[in-house]
Parts: sequence; C-alpha cells; structure tokens
Amino acid sequence: MRIARFSMNGNPHYAFVQKDQASGEDYLVEIDGYPLSGQQVEPTGNRYRIDDDWVRLLAPVIPSKVYGLAFNYRAHAEAIVADNPQIKPQSAEEMTVFMKPSTSVIGPDDPIVLPSYSQNMNFEPELAVVIGRIARRVSQAEALDYVLGYTCVNDVTLRDIQGSDPTWTRAKGFDTSCPLGPWVETELDGAHAGISFQLNGQDVPEARGTTANLIHSIPEQIAFISSFSTLLPGDVIMTGSPSGSGQLHSRDEATVTIDGIGSLRNVVIGEQE
Amino acid sequence: MRIARFSMNGNPHYAFVQKDQASGEDYLVEIDGYPLSGQQVEPTGNRYRIDDDWVRLLAPVIPSKVYGLAFNYRAHAEAIVADNPQIKPQSAEEMTVFMKPSTSVIGPDDPIVLPSYSQNMNFEPELAVVIGRIARRVSQAEALDYVLGYTCVNDVTLRDIQGSDPTWTRAKGFDTSCPLGPWVETELDGAHAGISFQLNGQDVPEARGTTANLIHSIPEQIAFISSFSTLLPGDVIMTGSPSGSGQLHSRDEATVTIDGIGSLRNVVIGEQE
Repeated sequence: MRIARFSMNGNPHYAFVQKDQASGEDYLVEIDGYPLSGQQVEPTGNRYRIDDDWVRLLAPVIPSKVYGLAFNYRAHAEAIVADNPQIKPQSAEEMTVFMKPSTSVIGPDDPIVLPSYSQNMNFEPELAVVIGRIARRVSQAEALDYVLGYTCVNDVTLRDIQGSDPTWTRAKGFDTSCPLGPWVETELDGAHAGISFQLNGQDVPEARGTTANLIHSIPEQIAFISSFSTLLPGDVIMTGSPSGSGQLHSRDEATVTIDGIGSLRNVVIGEQE
Repeated sequence: MRIARFSMNGNPHYAFVQKDQASGEDYLVEIDGYPLSGQQVEPTGNRYRIDDDWVRLLAPVIPSKVYGLAFNYRAHAEAIVADNPQIKPQSAEEMTVFMKPSTSVIGPDDPIVLPSYSQNMNFEPELAVVIGRIARRVSQAEALDYVLGYTCVNDVTLRDIQGSDPTWTRAKGFDTSCPLGPWVETELDGAHAGISFQLNGQDVPEARGTTANLIHSIPEQIAFISSFSTLLPGDVIMTGSPSGSGQLHSRDEATVTIDGIGSLRNVVIGEQE
C-alpha cells in the first residue's frame, strides 16, 4: 500500500495511491482520518489523477524529528574521509546518529535552497524508515512492528560546513535539507532495496547501492535510537548513504530513486534567486 | 507577564501567573486561546492556586525543536575541556549549535531519568529564550522582536557519552534531558540575568553566573540560527551554561534558578527504578 499526502487548494489531505486498471495511471484516493494513528481510515469518494495540475504532493509525513545514520555503508564512509580528512567517522562498531529538525523537511518538487554560505552542497540518496507507532526501548526482534513503511530521502549536506560544525546542525539541518517522498510504501523489504540517484536525469553510477550492504541493519537502528529517544508516529530514520556523493549546483535536478517505491525529484535554487 | 501551561484532570491549559494582592499567593488565571500566535487571549474566569493539588505545571511551551549554544561562556568552556580533553570546543569566534528533540522536553517536577548506559550525568543551568513569532533570516537589530520571553532550562548532559558521540545526539537529546519552566517571563532583561543552581536545596557556588558574560549575545544567537533554520513560535534557544557543571545522581533534586523568573525543580530517578 502507498500512503501519500497532498494539497488541493491549499488544504492538506491523505490518500492511497492506486493504479487505474484501464488507463494505467496513478490516482490519489482521498481518505478521511490520520493513517498513522492505527485508527480506521475511510475513502471520501474523491479521486484525483496524481499529475493533475491542481494536485501537489507533500512530504508524506510530518516528522517531529528526523534521525540520520552517518557512515552506515563502508564505501560511503571511506569516500567521505578520503576527500575530507577533517570529518572523523567512528569505528564500525558504534553508530553515529544525528538529527534534522522538522523545519528542514520538504516534499516532492519543492526547491532545495542552496545557502549563500556554502560552496559545496552534496546529495545523499537514502532509504527512509517511517515510524508508525510510539517506539521506546524496542528490541531488534520487535523493531519492524513499529515501522509503517519506507520512502525516499535526500540527506542534503553542506560538505564544506560539516568539518567546522562539530554537531552538523548547520551542515545537515538547514531549511530544505530534507526532501522526503513521494509516498510511504508499506510493502517494501527494507533489507534489500536498490538505491540510485539521477542528476539532471542522468544516472550517477558512483551513487548506486543497496540496503543489503548496510553496516547497521534497520532493526539495529530502531533498537539503538529508541533506547535513548522515544520515536513518534511519522518520525523518520535516514538509514545512511550507500556510496558516492556529489555536488549540487543551482538549477540542478536531484532525483532519488528506490526500487519498489519510486522517485523523489527536487530542483536546486540559490538562496539569492 | 508570566505565561504558564498546566494540566487539570489531564487536560492542558494556558494561564497567566498572577499574585493575589491579599494573600500574596501565586494564582493561575486560565486563558482561552494560544498565547504564542499573537491572537487575542481571554481569561476564562477560572482561577487556581498554583500549589493546588489538582494543578500540575507543564513545560510552558511545546517547542518543535530546542537549539543550544555550546561553550558560550569562557569559564564553562575552559572547565569542560580541562576535565574532558576528548571534547573539542570551537574558537571563540564561531558558534557551536546543537539540537534537542521535542521528545526530550519535560516540565517542572517531572523526573529526569538517568539512562542506564551513563555513569556521569551533569546538570547545566541556563537561560532559555522562547521564540514568539516565525523567525527567518532575522537581523541582530530586530532579533528581540521575535522573543516572547524567557524561562529556565537544565541542559542535562551525559558527559561520559559526549566524547564518543560526535554530534551529541545521544549525550544531550535523550528523553527527559530538557527540563523547561516554570513559566515564560515576558518582562526580563535577557542580557543581565543571574543564573544559579541548587543541588538538593544547597546552592552550588561554582555554577553561578550571569548572562552579562555571554560570549555570543542573544541577538547574535537568534540572527545566526535563523540564518539557516526557521524558528517557530514556541521554539527554544538554550543560551549556554555560565560556569561549572556537576554530577547528578539518582534521587538528587536539581533546581535551576534565574533571578526575575523563578525556579525549575526536578528530581533524578534511575532508568531501572
């Protein structure tokens, strides 16, 4: 099942995404109720073509916080440290967790705004875990019961700021640094998801990867984070960037694609434009 | 003016705190409406003694995020680095900003839960700035126009985890690590506020300080943070710990006192208790 959030005349709604059998087009089947609370949700009877001019997809959830895993794939950790000796990863046994605020989250097709104080903004395509139930001190064995589903995230990072910003708050938490979407897919196998990135429509081979190569699995991540911080419905864990990163310039189109979910596309604009 | 949030039979309400002229006691004058939105608020006619058994003060706001300044007083920065050589402060010209999630916030008299994985939990008494209006790229000259008022905060920190947790997410963002309250004082001069800390009712002289000794002033902090991250009404900036810190043990009573605001008191309990 695919759960989307969209706006129509400025009002937000939730919907299921369903393919029309006859035309093959994706439709939004509007629902009443909050699909993350475990409560019953009912179709309202309204149905919209997903590429209707009046429909705008939003980030599929409004997280109270977004946690991210750093250096959670060996290839990415080695590449970052080789190019940026001032950035220090931890040993492979530990997990480095950072946070992005809710104000950094944007939806599909929203612009990524390149801050004027950075000369090196990077993309990081990642699988995002969306939490469905309040999670506190959850065991690895039970962790997946707390997952609503998965979506795409671009962990946009100011690489030139990261080294002088000890907690990465400014390098990774700035407004628009967390594109999320296009919808939550509830049926995906998070342990075997193919991730790729397209820059201006061209695949970037160095950025390809699969969650099969995660150092710390998704159940490990949920168990670790929920051991110190309560996760709320809608909260997001960015599971890590699988491989090479790269620079984003003004007017670039940045697309994160995950097999079985779909594509999250955003265009970069400069802060002064 | 003092703005408090309280619960009565499990339902949250806002109130103004007013002294009864006859008895000298503090009363909660319940109000309708959200006092942070700039909208008109009206007294409901209900009034409660603040130490009524049925009244429970809550954290006075629900921040979407809490930002904190690290090493923002020379005395504190020197003490932390002398005792913990693995913790690296920045130069005095830069600001180190970190984040606590909304799930770390607790109110007056709520327990601080000492995590089982730490042997060295520290108190840090600080002046908290409460944002009253959406703040985005605000100049230093205009910064104080975006402040609703001030309250007390205890930036509880796991000192033994901080050195091995590069982004401080686990050391400073764990559940209950952000006691906030007892109310928002709108009339305080944030540039000259006396801060003290009482451990089990006894003043800790090493923890005394005043915001007159801040390295980066409150307008500088608001301008810097809002240059990369939009601040929402109710968001909080912890302005820094003025001087010595110290350890908290299970059953300790931790009280942050700020002249002109009042006292924020919390008791420590162990995670397993």
